[in-house]
Amino acid sequence: MTKPLMFEKPVGMRDTLPPLYDAKHNIRSVLMNSIVQWGYSFLQTPALEYYDTVGVTSSIADHQLFKLLDAEGQTLVLRPDVTAPIARVVSSIMKKEPFPLRLAYDSPVYRSLQKEGGRPAEFEQMGVELIGDKTSSADAEIVALMIALLEEIGLRDCKIAIGHVGFVDALFTDILSKEEDVDLLLRYLYEKNYVGYTHHVKNLSLSAQNEQRLLALLELKGGKETLKKAQAIGAQNSSPLLAEIDHLFDVLNMYGVQEKVSFDFSLRSHMSYYTGIIFEGYTANYGFPLCRGGRYDHLLQTFGRVAKAIGFALSIDDVMEALPPSGIQNKQECIIYSPSLRREAYEKAQALRRNGCAVVLQDVRGIDEMDHFTRRFSSVTYMLDTHQEGESC
Amino acid sequence: MTKPLMFEKPVGMRDTLPPLYDAKHNIRSVLMNSIVQWGYSFLQTPALEYYDTVGVTSSIADHQLFKLLDAEGQTLVLRPDVTAPIARVVSSIMKKEPFPLRLAYDSPVYRSLQKEGGRPAEFEQMGVELIGDKTSSADAEIVALMIALLEEIGLRDCKIAIGHVGFVDALFTDILSKEEDVDLLLRYLYEKNYVGYTHHVKNLSLSAQNEQRLLALLELKGGKETLKKAQAIGAQNSSPLLAEIDHLFDVLNMYGVQEKVSFDFSLRSHMSYYTGIIFEGYTANYGFPLCRGGRYDHLLQTFGRVAKAIGFALSIDDVMEALPPSGIQNKQECIIYSPSLRREAYEKAQALRRNGCAVVLQDVRGIDEMDHFTRRFSSVTYMLDTHQEGESC
Repeated sequence: MTKPLMFEKPVGMRDTLPPLYDAKHNIRSVLMNSIVQWGYSFLQTPALEYYDTVGVTSSIADHQLFKLLDAEGQTLVLRPDVTAPIARVVSSIMKKEPFPLRLAYDSPVYRSLQKEGGRPAEFEQMGVELIGDKTSSADAEIVALMIALLEEIGLRDCKIAIGHVGFVDALFTDILSKEEDVDLLLRYLYEKNYVGYTHHVKNLSLSAQNEQRLLALLELKGGKETLKKAQAIGAQNSSPLLAEIDHLFDVLNMYGVQEKVSFDFSLRSHMSYYTGIIFEGYTANYGFPLCRGGRYDHLLQTFGRVAKAIGFALSIDDVMEALPPSGIQNKQECIIYSPSLRREAYEKAQALRRNGCAVVLQDVRGIDEMDHFTRRFSSVTYMLDTHQEGESC
Repeated sequence: MTKPLMFEKPVGMRDTLPPLYDAKHNIRSVLMNSIVQWGYSFLQTPALEYYDTVGVTSSIADHQLFKLLDAEGQTLVLRPDVTAPIARVVSSIMKKEPFPLRLAYDSPVYRSLQKEGGRPAEFEQMGVELIGDKTSSADAEIVALMIALLEEIGLRDCKIAIGHVGFVDALFTDILSKEEDVDLLLRYLYEKNYVGYTHHVKNLSLSAQNEQRLLALLELKGGKETLKKAQAIGAQNSSPLLAEIDHLFDVLNMYGVQEKVSFDFSLRSHMSYYTGIIFEGYTANYGFPLCRGGRYDHLLQTFGRVAKAIGFALSIDDVMEALPPSGIQNKQECIIYSPSLRREAYEKAQALRRNGCAVVLQDVRGIDEMDHFTRRFSSVTYMLDTHQEGESC
């Protein structure tokens, strides 16, 4: 344990400096505006929650939680996820609000890293939850909204992959007898480690047909034709959920987003509370999902209010990485004045500000290196008194 | 230690529900817009910092820090204040940026409470820092910006009290010999416990004149005439700082805000890094300061970059409490449709959204209690197929 240098930050913690802050702020405003127009209301839950309530239900692995003790010795966690806190709110303070409820959030979440690896431990999520509506209309709205948001910020080439946790669960139950095999294969799926998955399946001493079914899962990707293939390899009891997905695809067609959507039955999430369809959004030239979501029909009842629900979260950091650099930087003008001309300088600055400009008003005596200082402004106006009076600083 | 109920939150943690969230969001937008127009650039520092860097320099009492351990056993703190993190940033990643630097932030800060008392442990601050400008023009800009912000959000009756930590320090050094008396009297001042202060002064066995000087400190409040009284009771070496304050008052007059400003030489802050003028902003009918700030000329050098600086922070929670209820609630329209009319309903919703409306598009089959559900909307349009087809959910 060495003493950190004065300017160091904990692992995974970052500063967001002005140009990136402004770009993020603009994107967040566009996203929030669309989310509000789709009838979702924003709320804010606290940074700290009890481990025993939100910490446990959030389904983020224990070693990824930032934990601390309060004055009474209770364990607290830094919010690792916002869906679980919203389930808490909906089941307590908002318990009299009738369903369906459309809620949204724009919050940092925290997941501890064991060592430095360039990944953030604090990252901003913007997300929505549609709670208490079991219809496929709700599923379609959530997927359509996700696409609308990505398009709104300029990611017109976005693609959404849709899977269903029930399909994989039924297939694995049908074929695998040991829970440890199920757990390992699920982990390979959500880590997208298809090499590890294939290798493990081949070592399982299954019948040729069952081995083939498990391997074929990885190929269950594509358009509506994929459903037939899924029917062929899936468990017998998967028919109703395939019909459900088929119907969802038709509803999405009505939203005009069918060409953005494809199936990926190998899709899996590390969030264990999902119970139905799950999905991820991508864009070309960026290798990570920008947003993820799914249906979670059992989470609410752990907080005592029974309700089916679906939602997604968008990673603001990934969105910023995926977007081309905006090139838009908030421009500032600067007025540099001598004390004797302070009033005139202030009046000029206020007139420009009333027109929407960002104006730095700077006493010339406060500047050390004039050339270096003025370089950051789009324009500089000098209002200098040539006979410097001796006003004290 | 009892197990918390599922819907409980840690001491001082709060949920901000939709109507208040929207009102706060509007106020924050207005404030941010003005701050940007005055030439300040927003940045974001992380929620977690090392105790040894920001935790120690923040000057928030140790028992008020939320502490946790990272994987290497280093102590981390939840950001208790943003001024110290900004000093870190300015001295490291931004160390090549020439002074003066105008920076701003909009961040929650965290201060642990020992027990429940209705006070928040997480609260939003919006603030600015003007770094590397020693002139009284910088002091005046900061005070004038604070007033402009309060006026912009409708608090036109705001008042700013200005003091100077150097005046009190010099007075106490002049009269008191024991450090414990100094510390106790300073604490009474920042707690505004004038009864405790007076009682302690009277028990100090001072000369009648010195006792009178310490008691008169509490009366040093008012306009420019207060400076003469301050001269009379202050330490001999206080003359330069009184001249500095006199000059500041003249500069504020140029900003047209003189009638908002008065002196209060008994003003003191619990933030120990202040070195010069300090100030607090109030409004009628609200008993707590809405914003506080001051000059801190030594903080930056603890991070290795020598610079004089001044700033303030506005408490968004106190501002919301001080403002009259806005009465503005984001209105939502609702379209309730049968599945067979989904396309028409969606097209209607999109047309309304393009006009800026917030529209909930709701499948009629997803609603449990129609009357209760529709109550939250400003208008409801029904697009129902009277011969309900049997589309499955």
